[in-house]
Amino acid sequence: MSDLFPERGGVPAAVSDRAWLQGMLDAESALARARVLDGADAIAEVCVAERFDVVSLGVASQESGNPVVPLARALREVSGVDDAHRGATSQDILDTAMMLVVRRALEPLLGDLSAAAEAAARLAAEHRSTPMAARTLLQQALPTTFGLRAAHWLVALEGAGAELRALELPAQLGGPAGTLAGLGPDVAARFAAELELTQPVLPWHTDRRPVAAVAGALGAAAGVVAKAARDVTLLSQTEIGEVREAAPGGSSAMPHKRNPVAAITALAAARQAPGLVAILLASMEQEHERAAGAWHAEWRPLRELLIACGTAAAWLRACLEGLTVEPDRMRANLALGVPEEARNGDALARHVAAAEALVDRALSPRRP
Amino acid sequence: MSDLFPERGGVPAAVSDRAWLQGMLDAESALARARVLDGADAIAEVCVAERFDVVSLGVASQESGNPVVPLARALREVSGVDDAHRGATSQDILDTAMMLVVRRALEPLLGDLSAAAEAAARLAAEHRSTPMAARTLLQQALPTTFGLRAAHWLVALEGAGAELRALELPAQLGGPAGTLAGLGPDVAARFAAELELTQPVLPWHTDRRPVAAVAGALGAAAGVVAKAARDVTLLSQTEIGEVREAAPGGSSAMPHKRNPVAAITALAAARQAPGLVAILLASMEQEHERAAGAWHAEWRPLRELLIACGTAAAWLRACLEGLTVEPDRMRANLALGVPEEARNGDALARHVAAAEALVDRALSPRRP
Amino acid sequence: MSDLFPERGGVPAAVSDRAWLQGMLDAESALARARVLDGADAIAEVCVAERFDVVSLGVASQESGNPVVPLARALREVSGVDDAHRGATSQDILDTAMMLVVRRALEPLLGDLSAAAEAAARLAAEHRSTPMAARTLLQQALPTTFGLRAAHWLVALEGAGAELRALELPAQLGGPAGTLAGLGPDVAARFAAELELTQPVLPWHTDRRPVAAVAGALGAAAGVVAKAARDVTLLSQTEIGEVREAAPGGSSAMPHKRNPVAAITALAAARQAPGLVAILLASMEQEHERAAGAWHAEWRPLRELLIACGTAAAWLRACLEGLTVEPDRMRANLALGVPEEARNGDALARHVAAAEALVDRALSPRRP
Amino acid sequence: MSDLFPERGGVPAAVSDRAWLQGMLDAESALARARVLDGADAIAEVCVAERFDVVSLGVASQESGNPVVPLARALREVSGVDDAHRGATSQDILDTAMMLVVRRALEPLLGDLSAAAEAAARLAAEHRSTPMAARTLLQQALPTTFGLRAAHWLVALEGAGAELRALELPAQLGGPAGTLAGLGPDVAARFAAELELTQPVLPWHTDRRPVAAVAGALGAAAGVVAKAARDVTLLSQTEIGEVREAAPGGSSAMPHKRNPVAAITALAAARQAPGLVAILLASMEQEHERAAGAWHAEWRPLRELLIACGTAAAWLRACLEGLTVEPDRMRANLALGVPEEARNGDALARHVAAAEALVDRALSPRRP
Repeated sequence: MSDLFPERGGVPAAVSDRAWLQGMLDAESALARARVLDGADAIAEVCVAERFDVVSLGVASQESGNPVVPLARALREVSGVDDAHRGATSQDILDTAMMLVVRRALEPLLGDLSAAAEAAARLAAEHRSTPMAARTLLQQALPTTFGLRAAHWLVALEGAGAELRALELPAQLGGPAGTLAGLGPDVAARFAAELELTQPVLPWHTDRRPVAAVAGALGAAAGVVAKAARDVTLLSQTEIGEVREAAPGGSSAMPHKRNPVAAITALAAARQAPGLVAILLASMEQEHERAAGAWHAEWRPLRELLIACGTAAAWLRACLEGLTVEPDRMRANLALGVPEEARNGDALARHVAAAEALVDRALSPRRP
Repeated sequence: MSDLFPERGGVPAAVSDRAWLQGMLDAESALARARVLDGADAIAEVCVAERFDVVSLGVASQESGNPVVPLARALREVSGVDDAHRGATSQDILDTAMMLVVRRALEPLLGDLSAAAEAAARLAAEHRSTPMAARTLLQQALPTTFGLRAAHWLVALEGAGAELRALELPAQLGGPAGTLAGLGPDVAARFAAELELTQPVLPWHTDRRPVAAVAGALGAAAGVVAKAARDVTLLSQTEIGEVREAAPGGSSAMPHKRNPVAAITALAAARQAPGLVAILLASMEQEHERAAGAWHAEWRPLRELLIACGTAAAWLRACLEGLTVEPDRMRANLALGVPEEARNGDALARHVAAAEALVDRALSPRRP
Repeated sequence: MSDLFPERGGVPAAVSDRAWLQGMLDAESALARARVLDGADAIAEVCVAERFDVVSLGVASQESGNPVVPLARALREVSGVDDAHRGATSQDILDTAMMLVVRRALEPLLGDLSAAAEAAARLAAEHRSTPMAARTLLQQALPTTFGLRAAHWLVALEGAGAELRALELPAQLGGPAGTLAGLGPDVAARFAAELELTQPVLPWHTDRRPVAAVAGALGAAAGVVAKAARDVTLLSQTEIGEVREAAPGGSSAMPHKRNPVAAITALAAARQAPGLVAILLASMEQEHERAAGAWHAEWRPLRELLIACGTAAAWLRACLEGLTVEPDRMRANLALGVPEEARNGDALARHVAAAEALVDRALSPRRP
Repeated sequence: MSDLFPERGGVPAAVSDRAWLQGMLDAESALARARVLDGADAIAEVCVAERFDVVSLGVASQESGNPVVPLARALREVSGVDDAHRGATSQDILDTAMMLVVRRALEPLLGDLSAAAEAAARLAAEHRSTPMAARTLLQQALPTTFGLRAAHWLVALEGAGAELRALELPAQLGGPAGTLAGLGPDVAARFAAELELTQPVLPWHTDRRPVAAVAGALGAAAGVVAKAARDVTLLSQTEIGEVREAAPGGSSAMPHKRNPVAAITALAAARQAPGLVAILLASMEQEHERAAGAWHAEWRPLRELLIACGTAAAWLRACLEGLTVEPDRMRANLALGVPEEARNGDALARHVAAAEALVDRALSPRRP
């Protein structure tokens, strides 16, 4: 978490220490209810992050290697319910909290992703027929329309969002040895239902497919954002000038600069994703019934990955929502590299019509 | 590709230079049929990898940056159909070939993954009630059964396979500018149908979600294999000795060694995956209508990733199919670290019963 | 930065938002002196992080994409020197601050790394002749001594530290276009000298070898820590029991557990490194005279990488400084897998003598 | 290895299966000499890769997990020296071969890197005073000269080459348990001397700093190549047109295209590096005296990394050696975005003079 370095949108708050703490408390509370514990109401009442001190939990966590051990102790004290947490193991609480944090972080992330897609859809519709040079390998090729470019962003952004929405986020409950001894499948089912998480076939303490699936979908979403942001930085180049951001940034030394800050920052954030995904995938190799390190290795990169994707989506949204398009410049540029026989009269019309058909195809599910 | 370094199973042959060439030829042939070309039959007849020379195509590809330019030339010559390849661009052929190669490589990969899952299922059933120490953070915790451990492998292996089977592999056809100019959506639909690939909403030349999805699913599969292989290496330790491979390896210097070679090599292969996935995710940032480098950057890591997963799955299959389990040793080891009150009499029975219930849950979809 | 998730040692404070801010202010102050500015003293006086508000700088940085634009404005206001920052560009200040932050973060990191090495040296000396089974591929092989194992940790830890100490950390000064126009090489030389950073041949605004070198050396250091921590987790296994941490952690559910928390947390931190290094290496591809995204992509992963390595080193230090060794257990375990002809009488003596010679070699540079 | 997908320069042949086999044979032969074996000459005579069959060694290696076990057997048969290989372990031979392969692969790689640097030096000298727009964040900023841009490439390429040249490549000899039992430090010293590798303080079987150092230096070199290649792709854009490759590629569908194929392919190759480095760094966590998987995980990514860097360097050399520069276009473009007060008369002269001073600084060590 950083005040100084790129964070934007609602994800950072949703993955803060406090948000994780709330996730753990929600898991503890749901466990009490699932166990039909007498003290379940008392526990539920105190399971509010503000009643616990993150810093001292963090310090105390160094004794056991994770914050649940001191949290369970504190919860018993604060609630007066000695039986709190019983039957569960630290990982049950932390893994379940992780899924809750992911679900909560996905809300603002998906909001920004959808808004970016919506902005792309508007650009696609508005510029459905605006001729522009298609560029392959950074060289002008043949005509397309700017609307089709925007339609590509739209389809990819929507698809990435759909993949994130389709993620199954399972509750984790297995107890110390992962056998559900002293709990049983019924408690596990109620626990998942309480939290509106799915119930897995088996506890997933060392089956990290849920984490890998989240990582993979976030990695793909980051890639989709990066593609659109990259296009904006390229189309904004001084020598091309086909799009302009609403609030380009100045420079500390060159007031004339019009830097596409939103696209650049989106790109910077999105580029964190591949390496972070790699850390999470490498952490799938988990020993026996609980990993000695690989489990603990997930928390920070998952948080950074959510922040990276959330920040990237929020900046891309700002970028696309405020994007000014320059059809005249697009048409003028067309003459620089597209062969004359392709950019005039009937030929141009054929290319434009082909692009329009694809724009319509991309927009069609959005129409009545 | 290597004769010397770990490759196993059917994937390497399915991703060889020749296999890619065949994929490209299949794409060219399908294109001719989709275009209802007069020469479609003539083209189909010659679209056999053996009729083309991979080495000279590779050399010639250095002029244009990809092998389709010389291949299209060669195809026109060999087939005598001047119109072959028309309407398509190199990327259409290569991306489509990529999806065909992935589909073909997934067959042996899924075969080995399923066989490994099957072996895990047998172990789970056979050792449903065999007590073993659950180990968390590499320390003995409480009792579980070896059957439950194997059931965990089973569920993860099956899940990873199901994710791979569910991948949508789309045909790619867009033409030079990605507009389908000169082709149209109908040709694209027929093209996809010919190859039994899905038809995407838009050409995906710079929307690399299909590649990212393949990468993510392979990365998860590698992680699942790594987990099981890791467990075998740990349970095989001299001091633990609870499982043994069928054909442990000797050493060049120590004939008494019984190295769990299959698990070790599976692990070594699986560990390639995270970094390779990262390369593919980083390649999603593709400029305009065709990337200047990011597209070309996908071929080798995708091949390596398929080989890594295929090799890992094939070795894990060998490992699990031949695994000998030592129930006596498991029971003896239990006394080393599981508290007495948990490993005797009723207490042990309760832990075992809990594990059995989960084994049954894991095996139930496989029963009549 | 996190209160909840693993951070230890002095690095986190040295890479905080405030620490980066101080680095930027130090760069601004050094620039004023290097330019022999009249207001240099006035600037130096106010260049204290506490006089500036990180949060509002962070918010304002969203306009320009980096925090130096608002910082330079604030500095002019607070110091009353209109000419402050002139001649420099944002990247000059941020890149130089980055090198200062790295240098300051390396101090506690190297302190912990050295202390870990020192602890390894003590173990090597003390157990120079303590027989232990060498284990290859997790199988017992032939005898070695625990002293030689510790000597291996020592040599690797010292070597990784030496590599970090040898890093050249260059000042960055190039001005808006990287030409030093309006500044000149003399100002650049004085600027570097003021900060005790090296002066590069050319400004390195888009030559990111300094960042790559830091990343590579940190990645190697993390790997070295991971190896030692891995060994401790393995030697601590219930069934092996050859070493014990001073303060093993309990569990929220199993009070009998003696988890090697220090080694586990060191391992978890160290495993972040490879993916973070990959992000930084991928960011070397920087366009023209200042990158549109790749530059901004460095800040967060560099911070996380420093925290990961610092945390890993601090935990390994705690682990090794408190490590209890069990020579009797080592000798008893030897009988489990080392062939009898190698572990008795003269044969054992020969193996031990060979190991001792290597221990002496490893320790010799440390002797008078 | 691939005939179809991007490989260029001398590295691929230097890292082939046969080249690794020769490296192993050289290690075996040096070992025989270092042990002052009677049969050392007989061994040396047969240690030629052509006398062994890579494919059957590869097949046989599946029994033991590495190819040295069958190779040692074959060597004893072919040479008739029963004592061949004695005292060594598989890893000694393979690790030493790895260092030999690296050294041999670095030769052509450094040749291409130097030639690319030389081409950059010529461009820097020739265009020392050629005005060009400096571009920051892909927007025109202030004037620089093309010579200074080329000087930046030069300094980075030379620096990356120097780092590779400075790598210490140690021989590995430790015997089965890594104690040098039965061999002794003198044999190890002679072994290293025979092969002109350095002798490490201790055997480095599980201290993978040598591999990490190679990986880090290659990763940095790839980044440096990527930066220059990226610049060429951007300066070659249709709308900018300030440089042109000697042999731009056509397209299968658009004969008018002038794609900067050399820069694009260099970029594609260079972008493999970060993920491959991550695999190698993650492999540093090696257990006890020989890793169960992490060691075996190094071979393929190291090979791919060498090929990637070698291919990238070779393509960049081709790109820069044939680069045509368009000073008129550079000057014309300057008017598009550089403020008038900076690009005319005295102001321009000042910017150019500043750039010239830096070009001279970059070129000075190359002058008599």
